Amino acid sequence: MAQIALSRRLRRTPFSDGVEAAGVKGYTVYNRMLLPTVFESAEVDYRHLKEHVQVWDVSCERQVELRGPDAARLMQMLTPRDLRGMLPGQCYYVPIVDETGGMLNDPVAVKLSEDRWWISIADSDLLLWVKGIANGYRLDVLVDEPDVSPLGVQGPKSDELMARVFGDRVRDIRFFKFDKFEFEGRELAIARSGYSKQGGFEIYVEGSDIGMPLWNALFAAGEDLQVRAGCPNLIERIEGGLLSYGNDMTDDNTPHECGLGKFCNTHTAIGCIGRDALLRVAKEGPVQQIRPIAIDGEPVPPCDRPWPIVAGGKRVGQVTSTTWSPDFSTNVAIGMVKLSHWEPGTRVEVETPDGLRGATVRDKFWI
Amino acid sequence: MAQIALSRRLRRTPFSDGVEAAGVKGYTVYNRMLLPTVFESAEVDYRHLKEHVQVWDVSCERQVELRGPDAARLMQMLTPRDLRGMLPGQCYYVPIVDETGGMLNDPVAVKLSEDRWWISIADSDLLLWVKGIANGYRLDVLVDEPDVSPLGVQGPKSDELMARVFGDRVRDIRFFKFDKFEFEGRELAIARSGYSKQGGFEIYVEGSDIGMPLWNALFAAGEDLQVRAGCPNLIERIEGGLLSYGNDMTDDNTPHECGLGKFCNTHTAIGCIGRDALLRVAKEGPVQQIRPIAIDGEPVPPCDRPWPIVAGGKRVGQVTSTTWSPDFSTNVAIGMVKLSHWEPGTRVEVETPDGLRGATVRDKFWI
Repeated sequence: MAQIALSRRLRRTPFSDGVEAAGVKGYTVYNRMLLPTVFESAEVDYRHLKEHVQVWDVSCERQVELRGPDAARLMQMLTPRDLRGMLPGQCYYVPIVDETGGMLNDPVAVKLSEDRWWISIADSDLLLWVKGIANGYRLDVLVDEPDVSPLGVQGPKSDELMARVFGDRVRDIRFFKFDKFEFEGRELAIARSGYSKQGGFEIYVEGSDIGMPLWNALFAAGEDLQVRAGCPNLIERIEGGLLSYGNDMTDDNTPHECGLGKFCNTHTAIGCIGRDALLRVAKEGPVQQIRPIAIDGEPVPPCDRPWPIVAGGKRVGQVTSTTWSPDFSTNVAIGMVKLSHWEPGTRVEVETPDGLRGATVRDKFWI
Repeated sequence: MAQIALSRRLRRTPFSDGVEAAGVKGYTVYNRMLLPTVFESAEVDYRHLKEHVQVWDVSCERQVELRGPDAARLMQMLTPRDLRGMLPGQCYYVPIVDETGGMLNDPVAVKLSEDRWWISIADSDLLLWVKGIANGYRLDVLVDEPDVSPLGVQGPKSDELMARVFGDRVRDIRFFKFDKFEFEGRELAIARSGYSKQGGFEIYVEGSDIGMPLWNALFAAGEDLQVRAGCPNLIERIEGGLLSYGNDMTDDNTPHECGLGKFCNTHTAIGCIGRDALLRVAKEGPVQQIRPIAIDGEPVPPCDRPWPIVAGGKRVGQVTSTTWSPDFSTNVAIGMVKLSHWEPGTRVEVETPDGLRGATVRDKFWI
C-alpha cells in the first residue's frame, strides 16, 4: 500500500499534533485536509468506539459561514429542505443541490441566528458554489470559511466525559440541537451529533489556538473512561447506514436516489435552485436508490472503486462502500440498486476483485 | 509516516492500473483524485526526468468544460487575463479570481473553439464556482466535468517518444499550443506543456477506455529510450519555480502576490469579476510576493506546513515548499516574503522543524 505524501496543500488541523502523538496509522484527505482513518486497527478502533469514548479530529468538516441580511434566503436557495420552521440552536441535515437536482454536498446546516449560519460540509468545495451563487444573484451576504474546526466526542461514555469538561448542562443538549459552553474563556457551540450511531457530540472549536488545550483537557478528564483518539470508523458507519458523499453518492445523484427524499420539501422550499428538477423527480420517483447489501462469504478486500452489481447477466447497480462486520459476521455494504432489483431479499451478485459473490439486498441497515 | 486509506472518494484514474504496475510508492490527493508523488525515490525520479522521458498520470488536472454561446464571455468573467486575442488551438495560463481578487485556482485555459473551452484545473473544485456564476448570471452555457484525463510526457526525449506514437507532426507543436492527433481512431488534443521545465507534452485523453491502451503504447514505443512512469517532481518543480496552488498560494493571495501580475490585464479584461479589486492592487502594488529562497545547511525535513521567515525578531514571510536539490547543493525553496525583505540577497532566517536556519532571498529560480 502506498504512503501519503504530506504537503501544506493537505492541510493539518488544530489537533494534528495530538493525532500524531496518539499514533495515527492511516490518513485520507477530505476537503483538502487530513482526516485520520485508523489508529490501532479498524476492528480494534470499532470495538473501542462501541464500548468507551473517543475523541475525533473531524476538522475536515469545514464550515461555510453565511452572514448578513440575505443569509437565510441564500441558505434556502441551496437546499430543497424547507427551513422556515428552523430555529437558532438547531442543526438540520440538508442535501445541497444544483439546478438539475444533482447533489453537491450533504452537510449539516447550523443556524446561529437569523442572519448567521454555518454549513458543516462533506467533501467538496461547497464554499465555491455558495460564493458563486451569492455573487451571481447579488445577495447581501458575506460567505467565507471561518477558523472553526469540529472535534467529535463519540461513544457510549460521551456524556460522562463531556460533563466533566463542560459541566452537567451538556447532558441536556438534545439530538441535532446545540448550545454554547465556555472553555478557557471562549464560547463554543456544542451539538449532539456526529458521524457514528454510538451517540456523542461535536464541538465547533472556534480558534485554532485552543485546539490542543481542549484535546488535552478531554484526555486528562477521561483517563479512567479509557478515552482514546478515534476517527469515523468504516465498519461502524456502514453497519449504521451513514452515507459518505463522494463514496456512496456524487453530483450524478439526486437526493431521492440517496434515500433523502424526506429532506426534500419541494412544494414549500420556495427559492431552492434545484426545485423544478426535483419536483419532476418527486413526481416520477427515482429509478435507482441506495440500499443496504449483505455480501456472502469471507471478508472482502478494500473497496476503492465501484463494484458492479449484476443479475441475469445485466448490471443492476454498484457497491460503493463495504467491509467485514465482526458483530454481524457478514460483509456489510452500501450500494445503489436499480428499481427492478431493490426489493428487500432480492438476490444479486457483486463483482469483487476476488470474483463474483452472491449478495442480498436488505430492508434496513444493521444498527 | 502514515499510509493512505483508499476509497472510491479518492478517485482512481484511467491510468491507475499502469501506475500501480510501475510500483508507485507515494500518493497525494489532488481534486479528490489520486496523484502519484514518487516511484523509486524523489532523487532517482528527478535524475531520470532530467535525462530521459517519463509518462505522468496527471488525470487530477480535471477539466471544466464551457460550451455554448456565452462560453467566451463566462471565461473572461473568471480571469483578469485579457482573452480577446486568444485563438482556438492556444492554451493560456490564467489566474482565476473571486470578487476580491483572491485566487481560486491557477489553471490552463484551452480554447477548443469560440464556444467551447476547457479549463485544466489546479487543486480546488473550480467547477462549483463556474457553475454558480453561470447560474447566477443566467448565462447561456453548459458547464460540466467531461471524461478527459491529461497524460503528461515529460523529459528531454519527449519529442522522440511522442513522434513514434503520433507521428512527426507532433514535433511542430509550439509551446502552449495544441493540435489534434489520432490514436486508435480517436482524435486527441495534444499540447506542448506540462508541469516541469524539461520540455514535453500533455495529451488530453478523451474517453477513459483508451487510457491504458495509450499508456501501453507509449511504454512499448519507448523501451530503448528508457521511458518510465513518473510524476511531478518536488525537487525539479521548486528548482524551476513552478508554483503549486494550495501550497504556495491560496485564496488569501492576489495574482500580484504570486508574481502573476503579468497575467492581469485589468484595464482591458472587461467583465472579469475581480477586476475592481485588482485595479486597486495594481495601483498600490502588493506588500508581499513569492520569491525563490535558498536555505543554508543540511537537507531540511519535509515541509508539510508553512515555515515562518523571520528577521530581526519579526515575521517577514513564510516558506511553503522546500527540498534539497542535488544539482544545486542547497535547499531550494518557494516562499512569500514581505516587501521590506524581498530584495535579492536579503538574509533572513527560516523556522524549520530542526530549528532556525539562515536563508537568502534570491533573484531567480534555479532553472
